[in-house]
Amino acid sequence: MLNQLLQKLDEKKERMIEIRRYLHQHPELSFKEEKTAQYIADFYKDKDVNIRTNVGGYGVVVTIKGGLPGKTVALRADFDGLPIMEEADVPFKSKNPGVMHACGHDGHTAYLMILAEALFEMKDQLKGNVVILHQPAEETPPGGAMAMIEDGCLEGVDNVFGIHLMSLADTGEVYYRAGEMQAGRSYFKVKIQGKGGHGSMPHTSNDSIVAASHFVVAAQTIVSRRINPFDMATVTIGSFDGKGSFNIIKDSVELEGDVRTMSSDIRATVEKEFKRILAGLAQEFDITYDLIYSHDYPVLVNDNDMTGLVVKGIKKAQIPEIKAVIETPPASGSEDFAYYLQKIPGSFFYVGAKPANGHVYPHHHPKFEINEDSLIIAAKAMAAVVAEYFGQE
Amino acid sequence: MLNQLLQKLDEKKERMIEIRRYLHQHPELSFKEEKTAQYIADFYKDKDVNIRTNVGGYGVVVTIKGGLPGKTVALRADFDGLPIMEEADVPFKSKNPGVMHACGHDGHTAYLMILAEALFEMKDQLKGNVVILHQPAEETPPGGAMAMIEDGCLEGVDNVFGIHLMSLADTGEVYYRAGEMQAGRSYFKVKIQGKGGHGSMPHTSNDSIVAASHFVVAAQTIVSRRINPFDMATVTIGSFDGKGSFNIIKDSVELEGDVRTMSSDIRATVEKEFKRILAGLAQEFDITYDLIYSHDYPVLVNDNDMTGLVVKGIKKAQIPEIKAVIETPPASGSEDFAYYLQKIPGSFFYVGAKPANGHVYPHHHPKFEINEDSLIIAAKAMAAVVAEYFGQE
Amino acid sequence: MLNQLLQKLDEKKERMIEIRRYLHQHPELSFKEEKTAQYIADFYKDKDVNIRTNVGGYGVVVTIKGGLPGKTVALRADFDGLPIMEEADVPFKSKNPGVMHACGHDGHTAYLMILAEALFEMKDQLKGNVVILHQPAEETPPGGAMAMIEDGCLEGVDNVFGIHLMSLADTGEVYYRAGEMQAGRSYFKVKIQGKGGHGSMPHTSNDSIVAASHFVVAAQTIVSRRINPFDMATVTIGSFDGKGSFNIIKDSVELEGDVRTMSSDIRATVEKEFKRILAGLAQEFDITYDLIYSHDYPVLVNDNDMTGLVVKGIKKAQIPEIKAVIETPPASGSEDFAYYLQKIPGSFFYVGAKPANGHVYPHHHPKFEINEDSLIIAAKAMAAVVAEYFGQE
Amino acid sequence: MLNQLLQKLDEKKERMIEIRRYLHQHPELSFKEEKTAQYIADFYKDKDVNIRTNVGGYGVVVTIKGGLPGKTVALRADFDGLPIMEEADVPFKSKNPGVMHACGHDGHTAYLMILAEALFEMKDQLKGNVVILHQPAEETPPGGAMAMIEDGCLEGVDNVFGIHLMSLADTGEVYYRAGEMQAGRSYFKVKIQGKGGHGSMPHTSNDSIVAASHFVVAAQTIVSRRINPFDMATVTIGSFDGKGSFNIIKDSVELEGDVRTMSSDIRATVEKEFKRILAGLAQEFDITYDLIYSHDYPVLVNDNDMTGLVVKGIKKAQIPEIKAVIETPPASGSEDFAYYLQKIPGSFFYVGAKPANGHVYPHHHPKFEINEDSLIIAAKAMAAVVAEYFGQE
Repeated sequence: MLNQLLQKLDEKKERMIEIRRYLHQHPELSFKEEKTAQYIADFYKDKDVNIRTNVGGYGVVVTIKGGLPGKTVALRADFDGLPIMEEADVPFKSKNPGVMHACGHDGHTAYLMILAEALFEMKDQLKGNVVILHQPAEETPPGGAMAMIEDGCLEGVDNVFGIHLMSLADTGEVYYRAGEMQAGRSYFKVKIQGKGGHGSMPHTSNDSIVAASHFVVAAQTIVSRRINPFDMATVTIGSFDGKGSFNIIKDSVELEGDVRTMSSDIRATVEKEFKRILAGLAQEFDITYDLIYSHDYPVLVNDNDMTGLVVKGIKKAQIPEIKAVIETPPASGSEDFAYYLQKIPGSFFYVGAKPANGHVYPHHHPKFEINEDSLIIAAKAMAAVVAEYFGQE
Repeated sequence: MLNQLLQKLDEKKERMIEIRRYLHQHPELSFKEEKTAQYIADFYKDKDVNIRTNVGGYGVVVTIKGGLPGKTVALRADFDGLPIMEEADVPFKSKNPGVMHACGHDGHTAYLMILAEALFEMKDQLKGNVVILHQPAEETPPGGAMAMIEDGCLEGVDNVFGIHLMSLADTGEVYYRAGEMQAGRSYFKVKIQGKGGHGSMPHTSNDSIVAASHFVVAAQTIVSRRINPFDMATVTIGSFDGKGSFNIIKDSVELEGDVRTMSSDIRATVEKEFKRILAGLAQEFDITYDLIYSHDYPVLVNDNDMTGLVVKGIKKAQIPEIKAVIETPPASGSEDFAYYLQKIPGSFFYVGAKPANGHVYPHHHPKFEINEDSLIIAAKAMAAVVAEYFGQE
Repeated sequence: MLNQLLQKLDEKKERMIEIRRYLHQHPELSFKEEKTAQYIADFYKDKDVNIRTNVGGYGVVVTIKGGLPGKTVALRADFDGLPIMEEADVPFKSKNPGVMHACGHDGHTAYLMILAEALFEMKDQLKGNVVILHQPAEETPPGGAMAMIEDGCLEGVDNVFGIHLMSLADTGEVYYRAGEMQAGRSYFKVKIQGKGGHGSMPHTSNDSIVAASHFVVAAQTIVSRRINPFDMATVTIGSFDGKGSFNIIKDSVELEGDVRTMSSDIRATVEKEFKRILAGLAQEFDITYDLIYSHDYPVLVNDNDMTGLVVKGIKKAQIPEIKAVIETPPASGSEDFAYYLQKIPGSFFYVGAKPANGHVYPHHHPKFEINEDSLIIAAKAMAAVVAEYFGQE
Repeated sequence: MLNQLLQKLDEKKERMIEIRRYLHQHPELSFKEEKTAQYIADFYKDKDVNIRTNVGGYGVVVTIKGGLPGKTVALRADFDGLPIMEEADVPFKSKNPGVMHACGHDGHTAYLMILAEALFEMKDQLKGNVVILHQPAEETPPGGAMAMIEDGCLEGVDNVFGIHLMSLADTGEVYYRAGEMQAGRSYFKVKIQGKGGHGSMPHTSNDSIVAASHFVVAAQTIVSRRINPFDMATVTIGSFDGKGSFNIIKDSVELEGDVRTMSSDIRATVEKEFKRILAGLAQEFDITYDLIYSHDYPVLVNDNDMTGLVVKGIKKAQIPEIKAVIETPPASGSEDFAYYLQKIPGSFFYVGAKPANGHVYPHHHPKFEINEDSLIIAAKAMAAVVAEYFGQE
């Protein structure tokens, strides 16, 4: 069954690239992917599959019922673009100025649509069901995954898999990791309110810049003294908005920042310590504050067994385009695929997509490109995972 | 001679108020007082005095040669307005929206024009010469005084006096102080340059917000540990411009601030310590910086003898409108009259101008008003000083 | 009467020096001046005066009733030594190793005993009464003055005067100041209690050294931001007792320090801000603390009229040894004479005592010496003050 | 061969415990283990082995030449005690008051002596040679390992293994880890030299407590901002020696501390940043400093293959006392076994020794005990490793 599936993918390779290029030319921002969702839904409309649109927003969920009894596996691809003006010199450049597929989500969607078609064509042979999750809004918290889950996209689903293309990793390489793979993320905004006054009369004022600076300094101790040194945590104050007149004591400033952790325990510890330091500082400097502290994407934790299945399936398939299957260390990025993994076991893995033309740029760069060979690799790798999952050779 | 002079002033009182109201309706910003300067010059044009216009900008210098030999004394009034939209409910409200005489300079100029006229009318009796300094641009560094001095306004002048009306001090009170009366002022702007990067990868970046916060914290030690506790100094960072994206480590921030001191020694100490802390911080946090550190108005130091002469002259004159002559403590404001006092001995003093109608607001307030009775008081007080200075009763 | 008094002092000059040398050889520490007190009491025992011993400790109070009616004036001299091993090369070196009159109190006591004797000899002529306050324990808080006051030493006394010899001021000069002359003093000791642990496991500990260091840093803002820059205040942490093992996170540290201010308002402000910062810090770093915060000697505030009387009396007396009577700026030292001045008006003044032999050392130095000519100067100056006080020439 | 070896160990079990108890009663401090070394050497003196004593100090190296050709493997046990007054209630309590085997080194030495004897008895069958490393001074840097290496203890040795007993881990469990297992360690001592003075005159002094506190605060940024958040690092200032007089500005303070890292790169980064911050601070606060910054035990890095061999050998042996062989996470402790691993591949592993009597205390605790069953477990586990290493079943 796998060989037949892989052969089908080879036959559909050119259409996969066409779809990817169409999507690349028509990127849409997170939560505004109306036309992309329509384009995807149209792809499935003449097929004998169950299609749900507008799932938790612009989500599209396609269910392929296998001919033989078995478990249900979900495959997910995200389809939103980024607010970036494309500078890549490609013939299929974005037609929406200021919006760009600069993270490879066009490739994710294209490979998965074609893989879904191939699976659909072979559905009578499948020992189980496949749920295709076309997800919007991965780039922007709260993300699209959570709303799709709340709208039932995982109902009846046993396990879930997903892929991210990686422009900086060699094409032909696949990367996996059991356990914590990507960081969880928290966001904070705090307005520190002192009392304004003339710079020469500090005693009649309450200097919010001095108080906020002490907070920035004290907040360093969260990572340096409060966290197990073997655990990962970052606390970044990315914005210190305290612009004012040089000779006036500033009445209030606003700080904004970002927290990354690799476990929910550490996430909770950082939040607790952050709030304690802030409350203490308020008393210390006699200021008041408004705090927004929210968690968005959680730590992405791959299931051990499902990750083992990914590795085993891909290795066993002996896909000629795949040169290596490599364990990757955890990284500090974040992904809302993590929400699916909070609900059901699964695994997220990476497919190298480094361009052969030397146009190698990081994700979110205006000149970002992918090697389109990575699409067939992604499709075949996921095909092998599905085959292994259903126990079909 | 003094009695005759005071009587003249009484006679001219209404015109003094008219002039003040005209100026109040036609305020001009610092360094842009072209029409005000013309109005002042026109006032003198038919009089047998020496008039120099465009002195160091829009300065107007009028020399009244006395009939008898003696010393030369300068009297100064400033004539610029402020960038404030007037909210005072007066019939002679500013006709230049967004510009306002909210510091009493209209009153300074009006009383001095009328006093000059009176002195001119009696010039044959004067045992010495009077130089009238109509100065622009007191409100905005570098100020008008320095340029007028460089343009020769003090040539041949032995001593100098000036008055400031005070809206918060009771009308009828005069305030003097020998020695340091107002603070000297320094200004700084420092750009701290680190290296940007993603919030989750601090080790590949160099966090300028953290570095700048440590600077704000460390700079507190200038006042707390470096200055004689009996000396006055303030170091205020009024602006911490570090607005950025919450999850990006900020590459650079800009601080701006203000320093006040009551002696040139302390001014130099603060500058030295500020620069040392900044240079040390740069090494500590591996950042670079651009620093502008400039001194503007120096400490205003009244001459002991000239201040004694002010007190003696005013008390002796027994001016009925003046209820009290009071020593005032030093204050943290600044005044470019200080430049004249760096060149020649003199004294600057205050005349209370608290409105009787209850509309009492601090200087630079949009509803600022003065009690117009303070004009005749200022004119008579300065007349008394001139008489005492010339030794004429 | 004054001339006669001054003449008597001249006659007794040698005895004054003998007494001083005896005291210098037999110094005793604060609160342990038993023998000194006995020596003083013995001096008076055959005189027809009222002697009270053991007043508030080792205090000796001698009342000389004048023959004529009038007010009652107290004159005070302190008599305790310091825990210093004398290194001065003088023939009358301390015979108590490790204890030394290194602040001139021996001179204070000697001049006042002789002046008391002279006044006693002339008591029938005196238009009022003189109370001699021989006070122990000036060097060590809580000091001897408060206990003597509580034990009634000021009962019936209208005004009080005192002198301090000054080794760094020229012999022949007298220094006065109306108003705040010496600083008030507060003391604090704070134990910061975190939680110990291994240096490699900060998350299981609570680092008291980090918390205490943040406190030291934050405490700088009391002076830099909370106090009127024209007011005097110092907050010194003189002891940071955090010695421990290099690889163990320290469970607790102890800080001790000193506060100086020139007004009770500022003293209260510093205390309030200190306590606020500490309470905030405790929350910030999750530590607990024990705080002792006490005020000892208050600001020494000389009465305006009494200070005027000192100046007038000394100048009028035209004492040949006195070359100048000079206003002195306020200083940051402290003196428990301040307690007397909280009860009744008076004035404390300085008498220059710089050695002519070049052995010029600051007070509390092991080589401290005074010029013994200062004793007759002190005696005559105080004699002149008493004469002026009683209105007797 | 292994079964025979294990049987021998069972027969020698009681003697192993006797040896351990003897050692426990006669502990000696690091670098002072003269008698212990003698005791060990005596044990081997009648056996036909090569013994070298005084190797790099009190080291004892015993070489057992196998009867068959093969590689040479070293087995290491440390034998120093700790400066702790024993509080454990055992019949074989320390007879050297203030010195105690509170880390299990007595057990290490006992098991290895008996294992050596058993191996010696079977040496004709051995396919290779065994070098027994009896090492002194593990507890105290620079440790005994480095000197023994310099003195040739690893010459001709291919690989090395070692065991640590663990009082907090269940008896019957063995713990391994490939790669970084224990942290590397750096030590620093820094004297910060300012300038003393009276607490009320900060401007004439240079407050070393304020400077050092700022250093402690700034040093937190090494971990919080300079290190990859996925890497481990701690910087602990364990001692802040700044005890002084409350009202004197402290002229100098001394800080001491400890650094832990899991790679030599991070170790170097911490050192570089520490030195930069200190140098910057010196300029910032105008202080000077003396710094000692030294590295002692490096990161302990187990070889992948040798660790695999440990796991395989122990599992294959099916030793009844061993219930589980478990991967352990890296830990922040340090061990001078790391030096051997810098020279040749090997593996260090842990043997659980939690007492069954409930007397469970951490290492270095005055009540520390081990379960003596752990001795036979250690001996058998290492026997299994040796058999696997020589490829002998």
